[in-house]
Amino acid sequence: MSFTTIEWTDDAVIMIDQRLLPTREVYVKCRTYQEVAEAIREMIIRGAPAIGVAAAMGIALGAKGIKAGTFEEFYREYERICDHLAGTRPTAVNLFWAVDRMKRFCLENKKAGIERLKVLIKEEALRIHKEDLEINRNIGKNGSPLIPNGARILTHCNAGGLATAGYGTALGVIRAAHEAGKEIEVFADETRPFLQGARLTAWELMKDHIPVTLITDNMAGYFMKKGMIDLVIVGADRIAANGDTANKIGTYSVAVLAREHNIPFYVAAPISTLDLSMKSGDEIPIEERNKREVTHVFETQIAPDGVKVLNPAFDVTPNRYIKAIITEKGVVEAPFDEGLKGIAGKG
Amino acid sequence: MSFTTIEWTDDAVIMIDQRLLPTREVYVKCRTYQEVAEAIREMIIRGAPAIGVAAAMGIALGAKGIKAGTFEEFYREYERICDHLAGTRPTAVNLFWAVDRMKRFCLENKKAGIERLKVLIKEEALRIHKEDLEINRNIGKNGSPLIPNGARILTHCNAGGLATAGYGTALGVIRAAHEAGKEIEVFADETRPFLQGARLTAWELMKDHIPVTLITDNMAGYFMKKGMIDLVIVGADRIAANGDTANKIGTYSVAVLAREHNIPFYVAAPISTLDLSMKSGDEIPIEERNKREVTHVFETQIAPDGVKVLNPAFDVTPNRYIKAIITEKGVVEAPFDEGLKGIAGKG
Repeated sequence: MSFTTIEWTDDAVIMIDQRLLPTREVYVKCRTYQEVAEAIREMIIRGAPAIGVAAAMGIALGAKGIKAGTFEEFYREYERICDHLAGTRPTAVNLFWAVDRMKRFCLENKKAGIERLKVLIKEEALRIHKEDLEINRNIGKNGSPLIPNGARILTHCNAGGLATAGYGTALGVIRAAHEAGKEIEVFADETRPFLQGARLTAWELMKDHIPVTLITDNMAGYFMKKGMIDLVIVGADRIAANGDTANKIGTYSVAVLAREHNIPFYVAAPISTLDLSMKSGDEIPIEERNKREVTHVFETQIAPDGVKVLNPAFDVTPNRYIKAIITEKGVVEAPFDEGLKGIAGKG
Repeated sequence: MSFTTIEWTDDAVIMIDQRLLPTREVYVKCRTYQEVAEAIREMIIRGAPAIGVAAAMGIALGAKGIKAGTFEEFYREYERICDHLAGTRPTAVNLFWAVDRMKRFCLENKKAGIERLKVLIKEEALRIHKEDLEINRNIGKNGSPLIPNGARILTHCNAGGLATAGYGTALGVIRAAHEAGKEIEVFADETRPFLQGARLTAWELMKDHIPVTLITDNMAGYFMKKGMIDLVIVGADRIAANGDTANKIGTYSVAVLAREHNIPFYVAAPISTLDLSMKSGDEIPIEERNKREVTHVFETQIAPDGVKVLNPAFDVTPNRYIKAIITEKGVVEAPFDEGLKGIAGKG
């Protein structure tokens, strides 16, 4: 890929500022864990897997700066940093997965000595980053056979290289199909209010010369009815034990429309997106974001002063609308409970 | 209402510039029929009934300026003006209805003498304007009983005072229910790409103190699933003989979602929106608009340079998704063929 979503340097975490794309390609340098947390909250970086990677790197950055004489002192501060990162966004479970892994890793290496431990923690964060890339490639490999040659694929939001350490989940499957020589065409929903489709998906697919057509969210049904969409593939922010999937607001509507037109609807996500502690999607917390995202586009005001706004950032697609969930360890079809449990347990 | 959508003065047609709302309330003075045509094409004025009124006024303005010795000379030029107005936008049939009425009216009054005829033509345009307001009030009266007290109503685009001579079709029903003392709440889809919901519907409902909440188009399904929407009501740009309804892009998706959640979906429109010459919605031409509407919001670019875009301005909702069509002459339920034919014939 011709851009870097997130990168570790020894004194900072560098991220492409996803709020400014596609017209400005600016890289932001976060020098403290607080700045990393703010970058997640403000959506400089977004996308469930990328948020997990950013949190891990933020924790490593914070750990570096801890002044402590004993492991207990160190861990008290470390845990505070972890919780600060975990408090940035509520819906994507990869964030909590990464934070939990970093906590566990620290406890498992308590005997290393504090300075050595800081290095090990940094290495663990970089491992999460590297593994994510590999996971995406495997999601791509597993999903590619589901994409027929000539397929016209609708995607919503950005589950691409920008939403991960690179390559992408939903766009990873698309990239893999493209690399396999299949002629495919992508329809990208613009994805209001944050416009991840218009700003990010269109941008990264054009960079990789994968044919993409931009449409507004409310056009998806029109093109399905005209027979111009063969399948839908999206990412996920959290998948419950029964397969119910939280993803960017609007995903549920696309899923309903897909079923109405007998179009297969796929979810592509790493195992770290599974939350088997939740029986169904009803339990998944949905983040409500600032109304300014709806009333303004960049600095341009598009709604009356003082208008009442609701801005849920995610919705939940019930499992009955989902044809299959594509993970790095295989493709799971309905009924999902069994399959997801099996795949989560795989070594 | 506290604003004027369109107004005739003796040397011009004045319109509120709907491209600039809600942050700027600017009135545009069209001094020639060409300027009126351009205003329709550029969506300074939009909304099927309002376009019909604007075209009639544009024709009257054009007629005033015709230099002709005989009726035949006059009519040749008059017809050219009519056709120029008719060529502005393809989907809304009210435009062609108004143009046809103005042509017929001219022919019926050929004996009046040219100067007198110009005055009569102006009066006919003003009559269309006045009738539209009255029609809207009757649509409101007929539709209001369908709105239960406490209803939370989703609407798409703007079928309000700004889309008509005043009062509105879908918003006319909402206004009538509000005037009848019902506690109602409106959810307004923002309606990309032109943002008629965010810019116009939210603005005019707030002006009239009718509670309104703005959401993005892709949130409608989420709120339906949460049980927060009791009914949907939209306007129409053209209704075929079988009830299939062309309306703003995204309407079809809302209709599919409404049926999925067992929420009644109503269309409110004047008889002039019926096109009984078309057996089904498949025959209705769909306008494809400039890609810049999708890639830019006002002057702000939101998509990559050179991205491929599709921008159909309308879609067709098949009759099976529609619970009833509310007109000034009554409410028609499925099967629509019989009912629409009957109502179109009423004196």
